[in-house]
Amino acid sequence: MRYEELTIEGRNAVVEAFRAGRTVDKLFVLDGCQDGPIRTILREAKKTDAIVNFVKKERLDQMSETGKHQGVIAYAAAYEYGTVEEMLGTAEERGEAPLLVILDGIEDPHNLGSIIRTANQAGAHGVVIPKRRASGLTATVAKASAGAINYTPVAKVTNISKTMEELKKRGMWFVCGDMGGEPMYQLDLTGPMGLVIGSEGEGVSRLVRENCDFVASIPMYGDIDSLNASVAMGVLSYEIVRQRLAKGK
Amino acid sequence: MRYEELTIEGRNAVVEAFRAGRTVDKLFVLDGCQDGPIRTILREAKKTDAIVNFVKKERLDQMSETGKHQGVIAYAAAYEYGTVEEMLGTAEERGEAPLLVILDGIEDPHNLGSIIRTANQAGAHGVVIPKRRASGLTATVAKASAGAINYTPVAKVTNISKTMEELKKRGMWFVCGDMGGEPMYQLDLTGPMGLVIGSEGEGVSRLVRENCDFVASIPMYGDIDSLNASVAMGVLSYEIVRQRLAKGK
Repeated sequence: MRYEELTIEGRNAVVEAFRAGRTVDKLFVLDGCQDGPIRTILREAKKTDAIVNFVKKERLDQMSETGKHQGVIAYAAAYEYGTVEEMLGTAEERGEAPLLVILDGIEDPHNLGSIIRTANQAGAHGVVIPKRRASGLTATVAKASAGAINYTPVAKVTNISKTMEELKKRGMWFVCGDMGGEPMYQLDLTGPMGLVIGSEGEGVSRLVRENCDFVASIPMYGDIDSLNASVAMGVLSYEIVRQRLAKGK
Repeated sequence: MRYEELTIEGRNAVVEAFRAGRTVDKLFVLDGCQDGPIRTILREAKKTDAIVNFVKKERLDQMSETGKHQGVIAYAAAYEYGTVEEMLGTAEERGEAPLLVILDGIEDPHNLGSIIRTANQAGAHGVVIPKRRASGLTATVAKASAGAINYTPVAKVTNISKTMEELKKRGMWFVCGDMGGEPMYQLDLTGPMGLVIGSEGEGVSRLVRENCDFVASIPMYGDIDSLNASVAMGVLSYEIVRQRLAKGK
């Protein structure tokens, strides 16, 4: 299941990577380039929902490790992604109420790794991240996860809000951590639950917040704004663990 | 109160730094060097309990930014350290049970910064770190603390165990987070409390653990060994917050 992290450069190499089924997180293509091989690559990218960026030659030159990018560079995922279905299946197999961690745009790979690690320890069945504006599964993430990336699946979805809506129809509840919510100790977080964590800079986005059943706040007595995202996720997920233990679930 | 982080090189500059009262975290002196100015520097270092390392010329050359170290390089603290007395004074002023965070050798500056940030938000009165084998207050720590370093004092002590013994005589209790302890939810952590967090690699050292009144464990359901140190600190400190709130303290 483990992949090496990889920057793939050049037309043939990138086409081959797609054909081999490798997950390409991001594709960088020379702006204005429209020939046959590039069109093939763009078609493959569309099929697999890879993010395509059209950039200038200078940018590609800067990114290139070999100096021979031929107008295209792909960033492949270091690890395979899982699916939300798979996570719900695991919960069912174990006879547990599903616990998913939904990340609304975590950009720091150290935070993402640390969150995967905590998700593993808190008994979550998986982590869901958005395709855009978020860290993918890089080698740094794997290291920060202390190996948890090998056990806890991470699913990448196009639209966090839509995924939440679908999961709500299947009986899941969602709680996000945000200021101005109810103190987390006063909420009942024992059901099938998605814990939503906002991005480092912006917090939870409006649409995602509106899709949450609960907004939970962590008491803060300090002089600054917030907690580190991975610490906030730890505190919230262990409040869920505490409540589930107290109910004997 | 804020200092710039600084590498100070050369005999006069280092002597002046000591005389100006700047906190020197570490001093590197050319091995075998015994002349007057160096002896003056070593005397000042002893007075202020700075850590002295005798090193070879190659090491100094490598560390030097100016190329003119004259056999001595000092690393000054980016921020001023506080004292444990000051922390206890703050707790008393506010009419709160003291809550201190004791770090038994946290080496990663990102973890130290994140812990200072969480300590600030959880209402702790200060953070205590050991002089040796630990990250000092560098610019990286300040950044990871999100500014909390300006509000939450950090004290540097020679011997963590001795400091704990002294504080126990003054009515404080100590809890460390470690595997094989009692589940944290079953302990009473509402009194004047020092929360002890072990190092990233080794956990809590034997002597420090023996000085703790409680060993608290965080429930772990995962496939890996432990949580990130700053996440574990967050989970434990918010269990203390929860218990204090529940008792109306």
